[in-house]
Order: sequence, then C-alpha cells, then structure tokens
Amino acid sequence: MFAVTILGNNSALPAYGRFPTAQVVTLNEQLFLIDCGEGTQIQMAKYKIRRSKINHIFISHLHGDHYFGLVGLITSMGLLGRENDLHLYAPAALEQILNLQFAVADTRLPFTLHFHALEQEGLIIDNKKFAVECFKTQHRIECWGFIIRERKQPRKINKEKIKQFDIPSAYYERLKNGDDYETKDGSIIKNEWVTIPNSHARSYAFCADTIYDETLIDKVASVSLLYHETTYLKDLEERAADRFHSTTIQAASIAQKANIHKLLIGHFSSKYEQLEVFEEEAKEVFTNTQLAIDGVTFLIK
Amino acid sequence: MFAVTILGNNSALPAYGRFPTAQVVTLNEQLFLIDCGEGTQIQMAKYKIRRSKINHIFISHLHGDHYFGLVGLITSMGLLGRENDLHLYAPAALEQILNLQFAVADTRLPFTLHFHALEQEGLIIDNKKFAVECFKTQHRIECWGFIIRERKQPRKINKEKIKQFDIPSAYYERLKNGDDYETKDGSIIKNEWVTIPNSHARSYAFCADTIYDETLIDKVASVSLLYHETTYLKDLEERAADRFHSTTIQAASIAQKANIHKLLIGHFSSKYEQLEVFEEEAKEVFTNTQLAIDGVTFLIK
Repeated sequence: MFAVTILGNNSALPAYGRFPTAQVVTLNEQLFLIDCGEGTQIQMAKYKIRRSKINHIFISHLHGDHYFGLVGLITSMGLLGRENDLHLYAPAALEQILNLQFAVADTRLPFTLHFHALEQEGLIIDNKKFAVECFKTQHRIECWGFIIRERKQPRKINKEKIKQFDIPSAYYERLKNGDDYETKDGSIIKNEWVTIPNSHARSYAFCADTIYDETLIDKVASVSLLYHETTYLKDLEERAADRFHSTTIQAASIAQKANIHKLLIGHFSSKYEQLEVFEEEAKEVFTNTQLAIDGVTFLIK
Repeated sequence: MFAVTILGNNSALPAYGRFPTAQVVTLNEQLFLIDCGEGTQIQMAKYKIRRSKINHIFISHLHGDHYFGLVGLITSMGLLGRENDLHLYAPAALEQILNLQFAVADTRLPFTLHFHALEQEGLIIDNKKFAVECFKTQHRIECWGFIIRERKQPRKINKEKIKQFDIPSAYYERLKNGDDYETKDGSIIKNEWVTIPNSHARSYAFCADTIYDETLIDKVASVSLLYHETTYLKDLEERAADRFHSTTIQAASIAQKANIHKLLIGHFSSKYEQLEVFEEEAKEVFTNTQLAIDGVTFLIK
C-alpha cells in the first residue's frame, strides 16, 4: 500500500469548507505527514487517520497555511501519551517557535521530538523500506519540496505462468510482496515461478508552493505521482507569478516535461468556489490529472 | 443585543466534533472574541461570524486549546485587507510568539495590532458603551478571566402605561433604547411616558480555566451570565483539583454563592461523549444552568 490522503487543499484563507494544506502518505505500515495547516488534527479525526502511526512530519515552509496546525497536533500527541520518537523536518526557524509555545504552556512532551532543520537538497532519510529527499522550490520565503520513494519494489504477477496454477486472485497482493503459495494439498508454489521482478520503484513528489520553475522538471523526473500546486487558473498567470504561485497550465507543463505518471493539483485560491475547471484546464496539457480533494486517498502506482 | 455565541466548548483534545475554547460576545455592533482555540476561524465561517466586526480579542492563558487559532485568524484578517486597529489583551509572552510567526512568514499586517499585556486585575477597557475588566483565576499557568459590562442600560417597558397607546410590539426594542414613537397621525409619544429606567446593567463573566476557587465569588458577583468551566463530572473532584480544573458541582456552587442570574458550563473533557449529565449535575445546585454548545447563541439578560 502506497497512497496519499488529502486533508486540505486550499490556499491561505480557509473557504467553502476547504482546509489548508496537509497530506498523509501511507507506505505500508508507515504514515508520513506533509504540511500541517490549521485544523489538520480535526481532519485526521474526520478521516480516521491514526495519529499514533505518524513518525515523520515534513513541513515545506513557514507560511501559516502550511504549519499552524502543527503545534496543536504535537501537543495532542503528548496528551495522548505517545511514547515513540517523532521526527520533524522543517525550516530551521520552526524549532524556536515550537519551543517557545511549549515553554509558555509548561508543556513537557512524553516522547522525544527530533527536529531536523532542512539545509541542503538531497536525501534526508534512507533506509531499507523508503527514502526521502528534499529539494528547493521558488517561493516568497524559503520553501522545500519532498520526494518519498519506496525501496521495496513489489514483484509483478507473471500472467502467463500464473494460469498454470490455481491461485485465488485475493492472494496476488501477497505474491507481489514475495510470499510463496501453499495449495490445499500442501504443495508449495514458489514465488519466483509466478512473479517477475519489478524494476519500477514507486515514488511521490510533493512540490509545495512554487512559482513556475523549470528546474523542477529534473528534480521530480519520472515520479509515479506528482503533487503540484495550482493556486490560480490559467488566465491569472501574471498574478500567480507576482505571488510566487502557479497556474493549472504551468503545473501540467511541469508534469508533462518531467514525464511523470500522474498529476495531483491543489492549493486552490479562496477566490474559486468551483474546482472542476482546474482539472479541465490542466488536462489540456497533461491528461492524467486529478484534483486533490479533501478526504480522498490516491493510490501511488 | 447582548449575547455570547459558543464556537468551541471542549478541553485540550478535540473530540466528537467539538472544538476547543472560543466565544464571540456581541454587544450591539461590537464583537468581542474570548479565547481562540485551533479552528476558530473555521467555526466563524460555519456560524457566519463577521470577522471584520471584531475589534477586541481577549486570551485567557497560553495553553494551546485557548489560543492556537489566533495567529491564523489574525493572518486571515490581514489577507482580507483589514484596515481597522485590532486590540489584543493576553498574557505578555504571546506577543513574542506572534511576532516570531509573522517574521518567519514575512507577514506585514495592513492594520495596527495593539498588544496589551495583562498585568493586574481591574478595568482594561472603559468607555461610554462598555467596560471590560480582567481578574486572575487559579490554573496551572498564568490565567485570566474577563467581565464585559454594558454601560448603556436599556429602559424597561412600562406595562401599565403602554396599554394606553397603540404601539406595535415590534417597536418595543427601540423604545428600550430610548426612542420616542411617532403615531400615524404625526403625534409623538415621548419615550418616558411608556418606559422606566432600568437599574440593571447587563454583564457577562468568562471564568476561563480554573480550579474551584471561592475568591471568584466576589469577582463575578451578580453578573447576568457567568461562564464557568466544568471539565469533569462531580465524581472526578480529585482529578479536577490535580489538573487545576473544576467539576459541575463546583461551578454551580460558585454560581449560587455569587448570586448570578444564569450559568453556562463548558470546557468538557474529551473523555465524555455525552454532555447531558453535566447539565443535570449542575442543576442540582444551580437551576438556571445551560450547556455551552458549539454554534448556540445565549442572550445575556
């Protein structure tokens, strides 16, 4: 299971019931939180996200709509008696803000919060199961994007070979994860008889807030799923540039040039009540585009 | 019009859709915000509170469930182009937290934010229309309660006298505010013919978070409406004391001894899903008690 659940898709001002940016990435048993706008913990309760499973939080930049919900979430984790370490990756100044807020409230967290200040582009986590890298985006203030890559690559079903055996399709997910199959009469069908290695490691790139920036093309090249902001529709390209944001066409151009599989768009300006036209415009340039809608989970394939 | 609208009634952890503490007091054209837990601006949108009408904000203390929504609200006011001065009354340390958050985001507010650090009990605002005083409550950290008193006292309808004239009851509100009435044939019915002065100036006391504290009795004596926290039911008196909170019976005892008109209870612990029993218990001691329910407006009489 590799997927992203949208908890907020709106830009600075909350509007039409849409929440500010927050996304939860699920990679098997791991949950990663990317950005944490105000109300993220309320959205987590609504969409039944298990806070306790989050061990890594990534904050792209220190505009409020991307982090004002963080101190509340961490405080709640403490009140709930969390014991596991929590790793937070963010611009350096966030550490002082959090420490000040904990100090005035006399808050003592019952777990260890590891603060990792983002300093340079490249790998920030690398282990057997997943790797995370950060890269800079061009915004009004220091701003970072993130790519989460799975290390374990699920195997592919060998469609020709599997016909020779009577394996229920409900078992295919376990075959992809490398398990053998035991038949009713006790004989073993070895995994490698019916699967082939998968050369494709899935990946998710989160581009944060950014002006149209062609240096992103290399940075997110060939990812499985790309999230790129589209604060404005295509007719407001000038306003987008003024405010270091992007339009639908610009996001779709990055997707198309970076040769990615699928595009998610979000961070919609509060001036728009209807969102369908965002998808229509982006699809003019890149067909495999979907709107990042609050509460929806997108599989990363 | 003198009333309080509840935007959040829950203690530290959001639960069962209940938001943390925030209340909006309406006094004629003025809106006052008391406390501002995470998500307050979302609740304001839901309950159609006009943010632009708020000129005074009071923060009782720096536990997150009472102020984590403030920086987002103020930021939004700026994004919406507010020009009117905003007055903020709060424990001194909040100023540094806000300034740090504005600095890292490069936020420049288009209006003047006046920060008033709470330092001693007594009047903090006094003008022709209303007065506000603050008083200390006993909590784990520095904590303040507030009393808002109207200065202009509406007159009372003289029930005997008014029978002699043909005045539509829809006009009574204007009579209470001192207006004369002009009949269809152009004659004037003077206000003082049909009304009598009202010796009672209405008042609202917000007791913030507090342990059971009999010094509150004098501080809130005879107010029209008292909000007192009831984090726990009566069987958890010991836990309440440990955590510097109050029970239903304790809040009702303060109300009864202070000879107030009506009691509102809130700040319910997340351990309780059903709230009715809070009201039942408080009414054992003080009959005129209601639950502070999100979205409900209570008239101050």
